[in-house]
Amino acid sequence: MTSTAQQEISVSSSSGSRPVSKDAIINLDHGDPTMFESFWKEVGEAADITIPSWRTLSYFSDVSNFCWFLQPEFAHEARRLHNLVGNAVADDRFLVIGTGSTQLFQASLFALSPSDAPEPMSVVSAVPYYSSFPRITDYLRSALYRWSGDASKFEGDAYIEVVCSPNNPDGSIREAVLKSSNGKTIHDLAYYWPQYTPITAAADHDIMLFTVSKLSGHAGTRVGWALVKDVEVAKKMVKFIELNTIGVSKDSQLRAATILKAISDGYEDPDLQTKPGLKMFEFGRRLLSMRWQKLREAVKASGIFTLPDFESVHCKFTGETTEACPAFAWLKCEREGKEDCADLFKKHKILTRGGGHFGVESNYARVSMVDRDETFDLFIERLMSLR
Amino acid sequence: MTSTAQQEISVSSSSGSRPVSKDAIINLDHGDPTMFESFWKEVGEAADITIPSWRTLSYFSDVSNFCWFLQPEFAHEARRLHNLVGNAVADDRFLVIGTGSTQLFQASLFALSPSDAPEPMSVVSAVPYYSSFPRITDYLRSALYRWSGDASKFEGDAYIEVVCSPNNPDGSIREAVLKSSNGKTIHDLAYYWPQYTPITAAADHDIMLFTVSKLSGHAGTRVGWALVKDVEVAKKMVKFIELNTIGVSKDSQLRAATILKAISDGYEDPDLQTKPGLKMFEFGRRLLSMRWQKLREAVKASGIFTLPDFESVHCKFTGETTEACPAFAWLKCEREGKEDCADLFKKHKILTRGGGHFGVESNYARVSMVDRDETFDLFIERLMSLR
Repeated sequence: MTSTAQQEISVSSSSGSRPVSKDAIINLDHGDPTMFESFWKEVGEAADITIPSWRTLSYFSDVSNFCWFLQPEFAHEARRLHNLVGNAVADDRFLVIGTGSTQLFQASLFALSPSDAPEPMSVVSAVPYYSSFPRITDYLRSALYRWSGDASKFEGDAYIEVVCSPNNPDGSIREAVLKSSNGKTIHDLAYYWPQYTPITAAADHDIMLFTVSKLSGHAGTRVGWALVKDVEVAKKMVKFIELNTIGVSKDSQLRAATILKAISDGYEDPDLQTKPGLKMFEFGRRLLSMRWQKLREAVKASGIFTLPDFESVHCKFTGETTEACPAFAWLKCEREGKEDCADLFKKHKILTRGGGHFGVESNYARVSMVDRDETFDLFIERLMSLR
Repeated sequence: MTSTAQQEISVSSSSGSRPVSKDAIINLDHGDPTMFESFWKEVGEAADITIPSWRTLSYFSDVSNFCWFLQPEFAHEARRLHNLVGNAVADDRFLVIGTGSTQLFQASLFALSPSDAPEPMSVVSAVPYYSSFPRITDYLRSALYRWSGDASKFEGDAYIEVVCSPNNPDGSIREAVLKSSNGKTIHDLAYYWPQYTPITAAADHDIMLFTVSKLSGHAGTRVGWALVKDVEVAKKMVKFIELNTIGVSKDSQLRAATILKAISDGYEDPDLQTKPGLKMFEFGRRLLSMRWQKLREAVKASGIFTLPDFESVHCKFTGETTEACPAFAWLKCEREGKEDCADLFKKHKILTRGGGHFGVESNYARVSMVDRDETFDLFIERLMSLR
């Protein structure tokens, strides 16, 4: 297996920026969701927010709620959107706000691990797993929990299994692979939205994590939320966030509430329904669908890569039968000798994330599909030249 | 010593809210800085912020900076304000942004602890120390660092000493008590601003932590910053924040930059200089000075409490010789038999934080001085009735 210590992800001078020329570095290593910028420019002022200087000074948002730092406006809009989309059971569940789903993942580990156990709880996920799980679990060398690798190879009774569905990096729909009654699960559903995958049912797991980053593209806002069944688990998650950052920025929560409201209004406000450009999931689905088509053509033309195939499934939200259009492409280099796929791309000034980060062989690489048009188009152009 | 596990601080239904009647619970347990609301209402629209929906989608703020999630506007305004006030050397120092200074404290522990040491690094602070230090250090049972209590009683060579100055809870000006060349220090300077204490020199320590919460009252914004001398330490702090929350909310940074700009403009913009109501430090100093006078009178009248005395010192920023007006009052109950001070207050429906949380005897209690007028005035009124 790969060593997580050696698999450090780095920010480089091309991260988050536009390629400046035809032969510039194309950075698709991170999943920076800037493709949504053009949608929000279309929406215009309706989703802007003004915050008066005297507002939200207090640490406290709503002391009548167990999650005392949760802005009620955000909770309302999150539940409203889940009900509109039908992707998760949100009513009668405890909603915990977090500084992105990364913080909520750690809050979940803290909440699910006994505080006084002699041995740390094993944290596992089936390969290929999200590259950050190992490092986020282990960076503080906590005695509460420790990364234990591939869930499929785990032997034992007590564990926390992280189930990412649709999965980062490969877009597959997943269920827990371990089934012990002593085991716990965390479902990372960051990508379970109609632009990425058909919505087949309202998910209803013990802990479900969501993030604004991948829903609407507002990664810089750092807001995620968890839907939790057990109140004691939810309370321990709140305690973690209290100790970690004394709550979550109210400005971000207010902004995220405004963004989520604009998304739902695009479907539910009669004045807006005649403007198809204001339906965010349609925008995302149309753009990603075109990109996946271009990518599949370029991959086919190259002859050296393959991509996962996705079954067409009926989406309850759109009413259409469609394939998944994941936020990442999981490319396999099919050349003989198990060529290092990320290295091959790097030689052509395309930055991707190699298989080793995800617990698998280096002939795989993950490529972001959610960057700006100019970056994606240049990537396709360069990919076409690779044979 | 007190057990940190038993010393859990809790949020109650009265946290952050106004007392509704003369005999309501008065909650001065937390340092919720809502006294600044009236100042910001006076400032008006100049410090409001509007964020367009399409802005700050990317994870990245400035990839040319080692702290890639730092908004340049914030760094500029933070340095400008330090130069105006003269409380810290900010130029030629590495600025790390954090989700409040709580996150930066943890980032500092992570950065100062060797990643592969056989034993955790000892974290100490002289009593009375800020009540959250022990729990924040120990909640994840990290093998990197562990809370080791009172710095004055620490024997050993390798340690991290946290120096809070002015000190929370007692307002005293502090220096490190340990002097080993192998020791490291973190200076928490959250209260080193002219409304709380005379500014005697520009602080210039290895790691200095500041927070918007205590500077301007924007606790709900969750923004703090560190000034760091050593680039390798600063980089490890950035790595911690990357793993912990993938950076810091851009919305909060932009808002905090607007707030800091308004504070500096109140002193430097010629159009505003004729309006004394727009000088934040004067507002804070005047209000806290009146409150401390009222408190000292009430304490004297009660005959059962004492308060720390503060020397009058020349403040380089205001040019005046003044006493400190700390954000907390550190009350000692002088009744015989070492009465539990927080318990005594609680019997009169005043919530404070008892000495045990700060590593000392329970005949001490900490009371917030930075709440709203109506809460503070009711506290004084009730205190006067205690004999």
